[in-house]
Amino acid sequence: MNTHPLLRRAIVGLMCGLGALAAASAWADEGMWTLDNLPRALLKQRYGFEPTQAWLDKVMRASARIPGCSASFVSPDGLVMTNHHCAERCVGQLSTPDNDRVAKGFLARERGQEQRCPEMELNRLENITDVTEVMNAATAGKQGAAYQAAEDATRARLTRECRGSDAESTRCDLVTLYRGGRYQLYKYRRYSDVRLVWVPEFSVAQFGGDPDNFNFPRWSLDTTFLRAYEGGQPAKVADYFRFKVAGAEPGELTLVPGHPGNTQRQLTVAQLEALRDRLALQVLPSLSESRGGLLQYGRQDAESHRLADGALQGVENGLKVIRGELEALSGRSLMETKRRAEQQLREFVAARPELKARVGDPWVDIEKATRAARAIGTEYSMIEMGQAFGSSLFQQARVLVRGAAERGKPNGERLREFVDTNLPQIEQRLRSPAPVYPAFEQARLTWSLNRLRSTLGADDATVKLVLGRRTPEQVAQALVSGSKLAQPAERLRLWNGGQAAIEQSDDPFIQLVRKLEPTARALRQRYEADVQAVEREAAQRVAIASFAQTGPGVYPDATFSLRLSFGSVKGWEENGRKIGPYTDVAGLYARATGEDPFALPPSWVAAQGQLQGSQRFNFVTDNDIIGGNSGSPVINREAEIVGLAFDGNMPSIGGAFFFDDKLNRMVGLHSGAIVEALRKVYRADGLLQELLGKP
Amino acid sequence: MNTHPLLRRAIVGLMCGLGALAAASAWADEGMWTLDNLPRALLKQRYGFEPTQAWLDKVMRASARIPGCSASFVSPDGLVMTNHHCAERCVGQLSTPDNDRVAKGFLARERGQEQRCPEMELNRLENITDVTEVMNAATAGKQGAAYQAAEDATRARLTRECRGSDAESTRCDLVTLYRGGRYQLYKYRRYSDVRLVWVPEFSVAQFGGDPDNFNFPRWSLDTTFLRAYEGGQPAKVADYFRFKVAGAEPGELTLVPGHPGNTQRQLTVAQLEALRDRLALQVLPSLSESRGGLLQYGRQDAESHRLADGALQGVENGLKVIRGELEALSGRSLMETKRRAEQQLREFVAARPELKARVGDPWVDIEKATRAARAIGTEYSMIEMGQAFGSSLFQQARVLVRGAAERGKPNGERLREFVDTNLPQIEQRLRSPAPVYPAFEQARLTWSLNRLRSTLGADDATVKLVLGRRTPEQVAQALVSGSKLAQPAERLRLWNGGQAAIEQSDDPFIQLVRKLEPTARALRQRYEADVQAVEREAAQRVAIASFAQTGPGVYPDATFSLRLSFGSVKGWEENGRKIGPYTDVAGLYARATGEDPFALPPSWVAAQGQLQGSQRFNFVTDNDIIGGNSGSPVINREAEIVGLAFDGNMPSIGGAFFFDDKLNRMVGLHSGAIVEALRKVYRADGLLQELLGKP
Repeated sequence: MNTHPLLRRAIVGLMCGLGALAAASAWADEGMWTLDNLPRALLKQRYGFEPTQAWLDKVMRASARIPGCSASFVSPDGLVMTNHHCAERCVGQLSTPDNDRVAKGFLARERGQEQRCPEMELNRLENITDVTEVMNAATAGKQGAAYQAAEDATRARLTRECRGSDAESTRCDLVTLYRGGRYQLYKYRRYSDVRLVWVPEFSVAQFGGDPDNFNFPRWSLDTTFLRAYEGGQPAKVADYFRFKVAGAEPGELTLVPGHPGNTQRQLTVAQLEALRDRLALQVLPSLSESRGGLLQYGRQDAESHRLADGALQGVENGLKVIRGELEALSGRSLMETKRRAEQQLREFVAARPELKARVGDPWVDIEKATRAARAIGTEYSMIEMGQAFGSSLFQQARVLVRGAAERGKPNGERLREFVDTNLPQIEQRLRSPAPVYPAFEQARLTWSLNRLRSTLGADDATVKLVLGRRTPEQVAQALVSGSKLAQPAERLRLWNGGQAAIEQSDDPFIQLVRKLEPTARALRQRYEADVQAVEREAAQRVAIASFAQTGPGVYPDATFSLRLSFGSVKGWEENGRKIGPYTDVAGLYARATGEDPFALPPSWVAAQGQLQGSQRFNFVTDNDIIGGNSGSPVINREAEIVGLAFDGNMPSIGGAFFFDDKLNRMVGLHSGAIVEALRKVYRADGLLQELLGKP
Repeated sequence: MNTHPLLRRAIVGLMCGLGALAAASAWADEGMWTLDNLPRALLKQRYGFEPTQAWLDKVMRASARIPGCSASFVSPDGLVMTNHHCAERCVGQLSTPDNDRVAKGFLARERGQEQRCPEMELNRLENITDVTEVMNAATAGKQGAAYQAAEDATRARLTRECRGSDAESTRCDLVTLYRGGRYQLYKYRRYSDVRLVWVPEFSVAQFGGDPDNFNFPRWSLDTTFLRAYEGGQPAKVADYFRFKVAGAEPGELTLVPGHPGNTQRQLTVAQLEALRDRLALQVLPSLSESRGGLLQYGRQDAESHRLADGALQGVENGLKVIRGELEALSGRSLMETKRRAEQQLREFVAARPELKARVGDPWVDIEKATRAARAIGTEYSMIEMGQAFGSSLFQQARVLVRGAAERGKPNGERLREFVDTNLPQIEQRLRSPAPVYPAFEQARLTWSLNRLRSTLGADDATVKLVLGRRTPEQVAQALVSGSKLAQPAERLRLWNGGQAAIEQSDDPFIQLVRKLEPTARALRQRYEADVQAVEREAAQRVAIASFAQTGPGVYPDATFSLRLSFGSVKGWEENGRKIGPYTDVAGLYARATGEDPFALPPSWVAAQGQLQGSQRFNFVTDNDIIGGNSGSPVINREAEIVGLAFDGNMPSIGGAFFFDDKLNRMVGLHSGAIVEALRKVYRADGLLQELLGKP
């Protein structure tokens, strides 16, 4: 199911799937820790830091999550800070050819001018309940499809009970930690009315574009301010972070609360090999093809350029991530290390009959699952995951067709994305007034239908069903021009009309999705039963073995739930070259060429004389972060904001598999640079006053 | 150096590099054998076939090679048969927007109408001289750059001596067999005046397009007829193949003389891993990006479609090959097999002190070379191999700049592509009147410059040198619009003007290439010394060990030199499904949808009533072939043509690394189908008479 927006920094997480467990090195600033299990001894010993419960509570409630990213509250009136690239989808939706807010930026000088993001929701964690025993009791002794069904039903029941009747402002997620070693219910305050307050021009927010992405030295003003509303009014919040304009000094402790999406630090070797081959054979080629198509699409005219450029951000970011991961998985060193560690763990188990009896041989089961994944993975991702249908209208049609069928079932028997607790989000997206661009839609659909045919072959039953005797271009043209699903009213009519409305619809996307349903659902069922359920069940046994080997004091793999990482401001050395921890405003102007992606917007060109050249701009720390952490505040021990995380360096991508404290660096935007920009470039006095408190 | 056209079927060969040695299984129809070392016992035992020396001489002289492909003489008047896709570049060059011979096909009803291919040359092997001892004496005790220099100088001297003074009609290549186990001089009759006689419409020649490429059942009329000329007259040839219209029956012996490009059947495991990672991280993404760009480029209008479509053939073919190779190298089975075999060979050596003293540990040396390749491979392929400059004008400029510098040196000290024996070919291409399309050129250059920047990063010295403060689009525009290298006269002026003309030229491509020269040459020198020379020298020692282990009776890896493979007409079984060995004309009409790539041209639509539905069309055999074999005749034991090789099935791609007799199949066009088409669709009576002899 592919209804979520592209979670840019979490794209790999979405594509890869499994949580994991890793042992923390005693010497590195490693780990994405849950707030209830911090490495307190290490923090005290290395940084003299002993967080109180009040500190932790405040950090939890001042932190937030938005789709694919992290965020934080920065004023008592619900002001929220996140990255530009995390809010870019919203800014694009609030733009038109005549008023391109992505290019020109936007500042609401009064609250009445703040613009609602059509599809954004924000979650703030309120509390956590452990439900490990409930889940274990439900799945005990089950395997494959039965395991999956029991887990799904229990998840549906628990999240619904947790949420209660207040669907609009409460959200509950079941979070799996330690690959099934622990299950917890996370209860969130949900804000569905999130408005755009300030966004700088794209050209300074993502200065350096794809060439500089994942690189450092760096000069990006990658930030956006939003505001959470409730009842039509700015949300009042008790916990928020204050700015420390001076930022943090070299070596100073930096803490990053946020929502890292996904790490795979304890996949088995068979899983790593399967992942490597999937990235190489499917994901990287598919993203590369999109990049080629988008580059050429954007050469037509200014409007095409605007559309293609927006999509290119996500694709190029994805390419860097996938490439970085594939590089980490290639060569010999990572795989050899993993092979040795796995061999040791297997020997550890083999030498302990009791443990052996309890965990069996999960590695063999997982290898079987990876073989199943190789056999049906391509079809699964093409047809069920929708890779073959690069069109937002197709995704809307899928939601409508499935939603009608699923809502007719009891909550516990539905596909998990249609359980009651997820419906408010879906409806929010169906109502979204975000424009759809037919020519662009048709181009992307043409490319992906071509890929469908070249991947599965002209004789494949689904290819025949989709194309018949027509070309990809003809089919895409007929679908896009014949569909009314670009209109929110039509989508809501079909959603509210239920199964009858779907069956009567002559919308070509609805009809296409309906024709595909038997195949798509069968693929999903097979994939979940033969691959995912097997892997999850076996991974739980690996986790048990691992716990037995390493003991307590470990952190769970990232799962897009709240974590805290620690570290300090610190450069690094690469191929004998020393890279310092800061850049400054003077460096930004020196790097500007006047040409995309190194062109500064007019506001910055005009302000050059006023800005302090020595003002620190971007900086690096050795905090352990990963995709999903984008938008996380970087705070000091006083819980003051010293920066805003927005990227990692290239070695940080390999962080999906292991943390390398010598090379892996987080890239942040300095708190002082934000203030300097607001003050001297944007003259946003009201916003500054709110941010820094009354003088 | 990237001056050769895209050798479509041999693309992998070009990209991969090493020859190898493999042991023939006693049970499979395996092997690409040199004509002086056929597996005679096996041929006799299995097929009762004992070729005479006269048979072998005739086969050698009736076979031919054209750029990237194979071919054969089929009449005493120099008529040549090859594949459509092998002559497509020529047909494209003979086309204009107003007269699209690719789309409409072409038939010269009189010799005077035959059209000269601007860049085609044809080679027919005349004789072979063994020079192993000369070469070994020259390189003895040398390593790295010194080894390379000695080999280059010896090659230059030997080929020049071999060719003598007749550069126009003689060509000599130094062929390395058994990875340096044997060196031979191949002397060819060179025909540089090759004319187009007949080419069917693209839509029937490559019916099924990319979706059907490497698939079977199949219906492609993938053939073209050319004619070799000498002194302005059709070449008279004593040896040629006659057609057998009935083709070959199931199980009947089929022999394929041809020029397989490259196999890697005995690369070491370190080399296979390095190859896998390079295909995954560089080659596949780069081809995928081109595919995306071309698909979108072709959507603009009919002329763009024509240009993009031509380029897409090569790219999509390359994608299938690379993907197939990567699939073979992924997973566990091939690598495990290779690991075990290598381990056994290493143990074999270790147990024999004398052998050990002779070969040392070549595996360790090769692993070191693969590490060097990983370190500089990307820069090398971007800058020196020209991946960053997707423009034929760049390639011309490179030839002109280097040619001027190299021709000033003694023959033995030049870069090997500029030794005297290669100059006629280069000059032929400089004179080529083939049109250059500026908008298309600019688009491709824009994409590849984008790739340069995203691959090496904005701070790379070469990126800065090429782009300065401009965008890829601006640079591409300035280069293409400012250059006169599209004109043959200007190219010849610069070529003939030598170093002085180059230094005075203000052509932007010439100036770009000159700026790049120091970096590009340094990369090449490093790559050749640290990677290629080390691998070749060590591979020779692996070959010695291998010979010692397996004994005689083995065939060398493919090296784009003449080989003979044997087999028989035979279907196969895949996932429990039986695939028969033939398709027929009726099946072609059944598969036609009227839409590209399944649309038949008007001539075939009109002729449907006249054609024999049961006429066999395409067929498969278990001959061991690989890219470069395209265009090879398929002959029977009487040396009669029963078909024309044009493809393999998907498992044949894995044939680069191992021959799987259960699955690996060659795909051919039936001799009777060619005759039926010439007779009833094209009514080419003159051609038929020439082909079948006087009635």
